[in-house]
Amino acid sequence: MQIAIVLYPRITALDAVGPYEILQRVPNAELVFVGERRGEVRSDTGLLGLTVDRTLDEVTSPDVVLVPGGSGGFELPEGGALHTWLRAVDETSTWTASVCTGALILAAAGLLKGRRAATHWLAVEELEARGVTHVPERFVRDGKYMTSAGVSAGIDMALALAEQLSGPMTAKMIQLATEYDPHPPFDAGSPQTAPRRVRELLWARRETVMRS
Amino acid sequence: MQIAIVLYPRITALDAVGPYEILQRVPNAELVFVGERRGEVRSDTGLLGLTVDRTLDEVTSPDVVLVPGGSGGFELPEGGALHTWLRAVDETSTWTASVCTGALILAAAGLLKGRRAATHWLAVEELEARGVTHVPERFVRDGKYMTSAGVSAGIDMALALAEQLSGPMTAKMIQLATEYDPHPPFDAGSPQTAPRRVRELLWARRETVMRS
Repeated sequence: MQIAIVLYPRITALDAVGPYEILQRVPNAELVFVGERRGEVRSDTGLLGLTVDRTLDEVTSPDVVLVPGGSGGFELPEGGALHTWLRAVDETSTWTASVCTGALILAAAGLLKGRRAATHWLAVEELEARGVTHVPERFVRDGKYMTSAGVSAGIDMALALAEQLSGPMTAKMIQLATEYDPHPPFDAGSPQTAPRRVRELLWARRETVMRS
Repeated sequence: MQIAIVLYPRITALDAVGPYEILQRVPNAELVFVGERRGEVRSDTGLLGLTVDRTLDEVTSPDVVLVPGGSGGFELPEGGALHTWLRAVDETSTWTASVCTGALILAAAGLLKGRRAATHWLAVEELEARGVTHVPERFVRDGKYMTSAGVSAGIDMALALAEQLSGPMTAKMIQLATEYDPHPPFDAGSPQTAPRRVRELLWARRETVMRS
């Protein structure tokens, strides 16, 4: 079983590394970081370099493909190399997944048309403009498509994916190995629970939050 | 304000990238990834490359220093370059922090003697052998030392640190920007809540889980 996590310039690092930390622990799975060119890509902030180990050409039939979000996703050319590759590998994948605004990339590649999906709460309109029905849940499964809400939600989704790939015992062992017993010091992690002022401030800055 | 996150070979990637994703959003903070040598280090699994941008010599007085865990931490020489640097920067840091078995590194550097600290639940004995009192909480503050439980707990701790650095409004905005509203699909993330068999299986494999 091969799990391919896509990297591209200006990715949101946790979107990729959260699911990586869960899925690398699935027994008998080979996890690879794949991108257009081998070598370093920088995260959306420019502050962290992550390494692409395999080019798109070298990964032709992953069982699982996962697309993280990030401001760089908005700059990918329509019908460019990544979109073309996604359409190709989706034909044989068992699971096609995204985290955060990674759903916009899957949608731009034409893979979510008419489907239900999650994304970052600031990107809902852009997802729906692609003909996708947004579902305000932590992660959403529609057929073989698994999509999560923003950034940290990829961890929850990856545990659900680990269960699908290897059963609940494996998923629980991974959860305990990574001590994923979250206790955020505040209850401000969703637009439903965050103080109104916090939500409004972020909404007012949404172009910057999403695209830079 | 400068925040330095330490990278070393065979680090647990989420230990570093979880806190990075939170702390890079603290206003007026410069976040840097620092290590013995510039360039790529590979994660504990070997599957992910992360880039060290600054050498230890180049970062001499960070306000915040954060040490992630990882199997490579067990192989750092006692009194070697990283321990020496940690002792030096700790003299002027406002916060000295660790995630997971990063607490063992701080302890080996002599910085947690007689203090209360958190670490990965499989590493408690090793922490206490260094004269540190283990506290089974998500994260623990003792003076300027902030330490978290395993892997994913660094996200919770980083939000608390963001509050210390920039107030509760900032921390809540960061939590909402990263949609940190966790809903794990299982309740198996701590040794208290995990099924007994899951806990026992991991305990039996603890040498492998911690050191490889």
